[in-house]
Amino acid sequence: MMIVPQFKNLQKVRCGVLTVEIEHVDAATLEKLEQQGVDCQPKASTIRIIQDKYLQKVHFSRHSIPLPKFMQIDDLNSAKQAGVLFNYPLMIKSKRLAYDGRGNAVANSEEELSSAVDALGGYDRGLYVEKWAPFVKELSVIVVRGRDNSVVCYPVVETIHRENICHIVKSPADVSWKIMKLATDVAFRAVSSLEGAGVFAVELFLTADGQILLNEVAPRPHNSGHHTIESCYTSQYEQHLRAVVGLPLGDPSMKAPAAIMYNILGEDEGEPGFLLAHQLIGRALGIPGASVHWYDKPEMRKQRKMGHITIVGPSVGVVKARLRSMLREETVDGETAVLPRVGIIMGSDSDLPVMKDAAKILREFDVPTEVRIVSAHRTPEYMVSYASSAWKRGIQVIIAGAGGAAHLPGMVAALTPLPVIGVPVRASTLDGLDSLLSIVQMPRGVPVATVAINNATNAGLLAVRILGVRDLNLQTRMAQYLEDRRDEVLAKGEKLEEGGWEDYLNSQR
Amino acid sequence: MMIVPQFKNLQKVRCGVLTVEIEHVDAATLEKLEQQGVDCQPKASTIRIIQDKYLQKVHFSRHSIPLPKFMQIDDLNSAKQAGVLFNYPLMIKSKRLAYDGRGNAVANSEEELSSAVDALGGYDRGLYVEKWAPFVKELSVIVVRGRDNSVVCYPVVETIHRENICHIVKSPADVSWKIMKLATDVAFRAVSSLEGAGVFAVELFLTADGQILLNEVAPRPHNSGHHTIESCYTSQYEQHLRAVVGLPLGDPSMKAPAAIMYNILGEDEGEPGFLLAHQLIGRALGIPGASVHWYDKPEMRKQRKMGHITIVGPSVGVVKARLRSMLREETVDGETAVLPRVGIIMGSDSDLPVMKDAAKILREFDVPTEVRIVSAHRTPEYMVSYASSAWKRGIQVIIAGAGGAAHLPGMVAALTPLPVIGVPVRASTLDGLDSLLSIVQMPRGVPVATVAINNATNAGLLAVRILGVRDLNLQTRMAQYLEDRRDEVLAKGEKLEEGGWEDYLNSQR
Repeated sequence: MMIVPQFKNLQKVRCGVLTVEIEHVDAATLEKLEQQGVDCQPKASTIRIIQDKYLQKVHFSRHSIPLPKFMQIDDLNSAKQAGVLFNYPLMIKSKRLAYDGRGNAVANSEEELSSAVDALGGYDRGLYVEKWAPFVKELSVIVVRGRDNSVVCYPVVETIHRENICHIVKSPADVSWKIMKLATDVAFRAVSSLEGAGVFAVELFLTADGQILLNEVAPRPHNSGHHTIESCYTSQYEQHLRAVVGLPLGDPSMKAPAAIMYNILGEDEGEPGFLLAHQLIGRALGIPGASVHWYDKPEMRKQRKMGHITIVGPSVGVVKARLRSMLREETVDGETAVLPRVGIIMGSDSDLPVMKDAAKILREFDVPTEVRIVSAHRTPEYMVSYASSAWKRGIQVIIAGAGGAAHLPGMVAALTPLPVIGVPVRASTLDGLDSLLSIVQMPRGVPVATVAINNATNAGLLAVRILGVRDLNLQTRMAQYLEDRRDEVLAKGEKLEEGGWEDYLNSQR
Repeated sequence: MMIVPQFKNLQKVRCGVLTVEIEHVDAATLEKLEQQGVDCQPKASTIRIIQDKYLQKVHFSRHSIPLPKFMQIDDLNSAKQAGVLFNYPLMIKSKRLAYDGRGNAVANSEEELSSAVDALGGYDRGLYVEKWAPFVKELSVIVVRGRDNSVVCYPVVETIHRENICHIVKSPADVSWKIMKLATDVAFRAVSSLEGAGVFAVELFLTADGQILLNEVAPRPHNSGHHTIESCYTSQYEQHLRAVVGLPLGDPSMKAPAAIMYNILGEDEGEPGFLLAHQLIGRALGIPGASVHWYDKPEMRKQRKMGHITIVGPSVGVVKARLRSMLREETVDGETAVLPRVGIIMGSDSDLPVMKDAAKILREFDVPTEVRIVSAHRTPEYMVSYASSAWKRGIQVIIAGAGGAAHLPGMVAALTPLPVIGVPVRASTLDGLDSLLSIVQMPRGVPVATVAINNATNAGLLAVRILGVRDLNLQTRMAQYLEDRRDEVLAKGEKLEEGGWEDYLNSQR
């Protein structure tokens, strides 16, 4: 197999399958080669459609893929007409050779039309305009098709651009399940309309009203898939090779829960730029889970992609904190920054003598924990904000203690997708039965994992068991804990057997 | 930095730091280079000690590292003496150039001594004997030391040998937490006694009585660390480079819960051997999470390491099942084999009408589930075997339903480190309060996550929340579930508001 961006003397070369690493190649030559029997994946037709952004829009529009309104402009008149139809700001784009923000210009008013068009090289270059998509997020889905038409999709990621250049990619994207399904569906349909095997990156807009619009497709491994090298079972590069040569497609799912990719963009020309990049890389080497990719390009230019850094970690909160630490946005030390994984909350400080036992267990198992007073009845707004933001902050389990009417655990469970453990604290009356029933008798739809009255120790142990589900280290320690308790009891039994029950009772006095 | 196995004309080369990829190099030359100012990592002293296995034993013995008894043999007499001291079978080893089983011979009796010694090339080759270590498992720990003496240890792995050649590596090892700590401690102390920076692989024996004995140390990346390429945040190779050039050491922990590495050993000479290997690789390409490494060695020889395959996955059970499928030990299809993640158990089929709701929820969230009748009182032995084996089979959460005395959830929780969710099933008397109290009022040490009486729906939802802790996909779906329930209730509210309460009630009739 060969990967060739330019096709010279290809007929003389024995070539099993031909693929591209960039779509800006001579499509006519590709078509000729195909006619001569060279196996191109993806097909020349796909390259021809994609390399012309206007043609791409027409194509997807014909296949009923949702996308922003667009129209070709040939002169100032049609440009003005577009301005009237689509309103300003107006995005003017080159049809061809446009990537990384090049080939795009914005006209904020009719007066700016001419200068924007001039910046793109004039109407003869082939221009079109797009109605501004008032997106709230940019998403991307890598879709892979094998030669046997099997298809796999990578998780939806969020891409954050800086001056039109991809700057940060978060995997998975922080969007609802509905949006993930919709984005994957649009991406899948877009790729289904194109011919040939390989990796396709589908860039999408998410609008404020929850619509997904297609931005553009790249028929190759893509910046938004770089994170897959470290974060997924199969990287986009291996996947592309599997696809074009006809091997079974690999598993596209993530092997670690969260990843962030950060593009190292040229900040200054020449030496000063290299210095800045190397400082960043130096810090990245000290960040757990960070992998540095330096492309070793000979020249540093402003906004040029010089390399990238991927940070992979056990939760979104952790990888975000590590990124901030790498960028020195926080004084926290990346090596030592420990995010709490369990939140212990209680309605009142009078619950602390009971709830401290959960904190003790979690400390024994080295699980970072935060302890807070959050009252359902006295600080209801704080409860809502605490409960609804906990999962985005990296909290993985919430332990909530309450007595009497004991609303806290159930209310928190209604506000978070995290597992919530409820500890019924014995209040002054009813021996805690009131607390227990208030906590455990939740309606269908919102579970609270309830433990025994006043038994915060078991709440801590349950949290460890829950975290151990994908952390064999913790799970093995829990098994050891059970063994140690067994040995303790057996030792007591031995002592009883040896000395008899009277000695045993006397020795306890 | 250079990696050179042989040192010719090194003085003429500008060399920042020198390291080795195998310990069988000329230590005298290495020492000379060190004297001339070449920076060797690890130190020549370390290479000298390690390349002579007898010297290595003497060294570690002096540093109080536990290891099997050993003694040098110079002639038949001393060999016989060793036989008397250590008993048969007696392991005879070459001091030097011994690896992958070469340089080892076993004498099962005094009569076999001469032939075993002959097989190793005679006493002049430098031989010693080791007392047979009656190990139950072989373990390995990769320890890394930086130039600044910082140290990190990879998780303890189990190595399974076939005819003295490493065949399979499981990470993490299936041993207790105590053994993990002990193994890591012995490995750490062994490496602390050696000089220089780099990766060190410490091979260990675990004996039946829970002792850890040192087998040998390799001063370099090692077969038992190949899995780190895919399974850990930092691979052993990157780690070695970081260590010898003085960069901060990377995070050695696993980014996925479990990994198995399988060495592709030559089975037949020549073409037939390649055919077998390629069949294996062909199957591996269809196994999710499997990565193939083919070393492209020109010749196939029996027992030669030709490549390796690493399978990384979400649990030990899953990677084991995938390995079996790759090796065709099971007819299960690797692509479609789905291991249950949740076990729903109940004491009697009369609980099924309640417990089915948990199964329904888990199906809705696409969580593979098994449903079993396991009674604490009528099938106590089965309960013990089910509960204690569940975590090794890949079950991650157990949901147990029971009524009345309701012992099942608590008994199961006492036998597993997994989170156990208890569903109190309403029996014929006491309205389920008996079941509830039997399940929730567990003693300190063994938690049961109890849900409302007869509310198996919430048990299923709690299981999903628990699995979502490290599965953002499930977590996001759970958030969507909450949103959907909210929208349903809001829609009902709207209907009530529009039509009035009388119409509302009428429309429900």
